Amino acid sequence: MKAEIICIGTELLLGQIVDTNAAYLAGELADLGIDLYHKSTVGDNLERVIATLGQAWERANLLILSGGLGPTQDDLTREAIAGLLQEELEFNPEAWEQVCAYFQKTQRSVPENNRRQAMFPRSGRVILNRLGTAPAMLVEKDKHILITLPGVPSELKGLWDTSFKPFLRKKMTQEGSPALNSLLVRMVGIGESAMEEKILDLIKSQTNPTLAPYASRGEISLRITAKSDNEQYNRDLIEKALDLIKERLGSYIYGYDRDNLESVVGQILRTKGRRLGLAESCTGGLIGHRITNVPGSSDYYLGGVNSYSNQLKIDFLGVAERTLAEYGAVSPETAKEMAEGIRKRTGADVGLATTGIAGPGGGTDLKPVGLVYMAVALPDRTEVERRIFPFDRIGNKESAAQAGLALLWRCLKE
Amino acid sequence: MKAEIICIGTELLLGQIVDTNAAYLAGELADLGIDLYHKSTVGDNLERVIATLGQAWERANLLILSGGLGPTQDDLTREAIAGLLQEELEFNPEAWEQVCAYFQKTQRSVPENNRRQAMFPRSGRVILNRLGTAPAMLVEKDKHILITLPGVPSELKGLWDTSFKPFLRKKMTQEGSPALNSLLVRMVGIGESAMEEKILDLIKSQTNPTLAPYASRGEISLRITAKSDNEQYNRDLIEKALDLIKERLGSYIYGYDRDNLESVVGQILRTKGRRLGLAESCTGGLIGHRITNVPGSSDYYLGGVNSYSNQLKIDFLGVAERTLAEYGAVSPETAKEMAEGIRKRTGADVGLATTGIAGPGGGTDLKPVGLVYMAVALPDRTEVERRIFPFDRIGNKESAAQAGLALLWRCLKE
Repeated sequence: MKAEIICIGTELLLGQIVDTNAAYLAGELADLGIDLYHKSTVGDNLERVIATLGQAWERANLLILSGGLGPTQDDLTREAIAGLLQEELEFNPEAWEQVCAYFQKTQRSVPENNRRQAMFPRSGRVILNRLGTAPAMLVEKDKHILITLPGVPSELKGLWDTSFKPFLRKKMTQEGSPALNSLLVRMVGIGESAMEEKILDLIKSQTNPTLAPYASRGEISLRITAKSDNEQYNRDLIEKALDLIKERLGSYIYGYDRDNLESVVGQILRTKGRRLGLAESCTGGLIGHRITNVPGSSDYYLGGVNSYSNQLKIDFLGVAERTLAEYGAVSPETAKEMAEGIRKRTGADVGLATTGIAGPGGGTDLKPVGLVYMAVALPDRTEVERRIFPFDRIGNKESAAQAGLALLWRCLKE
Repeated sequence: MKAEIICIGTELLLGQIVDTNAAYLAGELADLGIDLYHKSTVGDNLERVIATLGQAWERANLLILSGGLGPTQDDLTREAIAGLLQEELEFNPEAWEQVCAYFQKTQRSVPENNRRQAMFPRSGRVILNRLGTAPAMLVEKDKHILITLPGVPSELKGLWDTSFKPFLRKKMTQEGSPALNSLLVRMVGIGESAMEEKILDLIKSQTNPTLAPYASRGEISLRITAKSDNEQYNRDLIEKALDLIKERLGSYIYGYDRDNLESVVGQILRTKGRRLGLAESCTGGLIGHRITNVPGSSDYYLGGVNSYSNQLKIDFLGVAERTLAEYGAVSPETAKEMAEGIRKRTGADVGLATTGIAGPGGGTDLKPVGLVYMAVALPDRTEVERRIFPFDRIGNKESAAQAGLALLWRCLKE
């Protein structure tokens, strides 16, 4: 199967948003083993959208469209598909039912112009979108598959995961395409080049499975990909490669595939029956946000204090005024007292604290922008770690949150 | 001038990186008033890159390329341009000098394969890249302009700012191109279709300036774009359109262009000399994260409590046990006591609280998943708002954070 991704929306051509959908879909296609040679972006102009679709229809047999499914006049994806297929748009009762159901759920009446979202070309099958107003569409015609997805990332991912990815996987099997399986190995506490050095011989010698390293903020991952006619054989190949990698990098591996630090930490807390309290200063709530992104986190997360001012560190966490006066708010001493304070005051088993200088202001020679202390208070001891990050304010916050969770993971897994 | 952006690199088609370059360049072109109708991404395949360039050459007269200028075998941008222009690649001493200078600066010897970076087609002029090894290229031929930029974002931005943007601005003036100005009007508290209904006559009748609505999570924006020979005239056109829009939608407008709710709320707090405390339950820290993303927020943000468990609501915020027992944690009564509690205990002037059911579990018929109460405690009163969001867990958290900030904004601006 040969795919093209077409993103529709003038806002994408005005630079108002970074298109994360295209990258997400590209990764998913790679995961399915579907070739992707072109991605295009086109504005909300009917003629140009139709021309772009027409070209993709010639070059590829799987077209994945995102955006332009809203209710307003400049949402033209439905019209463009009708133009491409040379079909009329018709009112589709099934699609309309979905639009109405969405508004009922949020206890609002349906605006008249949302009727546009129920106009489908005859070949278009309605695909249920539980997360938004826009029903998605699937077209199978003349040995081509055309898929439309809404532009809102969470809706796009939801629909992809539940409907289109399983559908395409089945199509691939029916076509007799070789099976492709992959495993993403997730690591913290090691840099990309250091990781690569440890397994460079494997990366160079392996052809099946292949090993591809990739670095993102505060995390390194390694994709193991196997290709053959047999899924079980692929999984065996991956298992063997993983054993070799574990021998050299085992202590850095925290999870696989869609795991993230907050879900893995949550799993350990749940298994061990431990409860967590957070004292965030420079991360401003981001660690709490990540921890509570995991469904069921209220079972092990009691809550925390976002102690941005010194007074809150004293009043809510019991940090000693003397500690703040002598060592400052950004110091190992304060981080330690914050972690121990939140542990004690919430009755948690484990306390995690961050304090640092996110920037752009507030740095000094001794305490530069990017300096962060993280502390984990455990029943028997408190561990403190110092890091300096070189990013902008938000980058430093994100890195500190990631490093804080990584420290928590290391302390918990022991 | 009509532009196309072409990003070159197989890594972009594997979903390994989100392409921030294209969004950056799109925004810059909008700023210059250069029309952009298409963006494409193509992998490191010579034939396909040449075909993509050829198509862009037909549709547009300004081609902006990013990526594929490195020293390795799969960096094919130079070869593709030579193919497009039907010229031979020649060794360019000026380009070579730059490559060597970069290595000298970093005190390394020049690897032999970097010689590839000095191979230029005859029409290609060398543009100095102070930040990396890859010299950029400018081609002016047959009324077309072709620009190559390196894929590394910092190098791309540096070269764009110092060389290509001034060059293009000058070209535009020489050509007597019309000036383009735009304003993004940001709104909360109204849906996309409801907003459009209120100004549909304006959207349909306006040709200069044009009005384009756009929806993102919990927020609607409207772009006003004016085009004429005269920047001042454009600004007057925008001003007049804005007046009309304000008459109908004024109470929803919270900001313009790069504003966001956290920066606008911060600005009001700073101006009025008020200080904020947060009590987050279902949002889990996300509001604190957003508030503290704004540099200098420690001037008006004291901190907050992430009261995930009931016990923390009682101990840290002073919510009455009776209130929790009688009305439950997700209730207007609890939201009110949380907001008033954080206000009192932190000594803040304003307290903001959220409590709700993010899902996927925990919902009942009376209190479904997505139900959220937000409260703002002010010196003289407390306002409580109820919303039901239809999203997944993270979507509900994001929507609740946005709605909480929107409520805070409405209460503060009075």
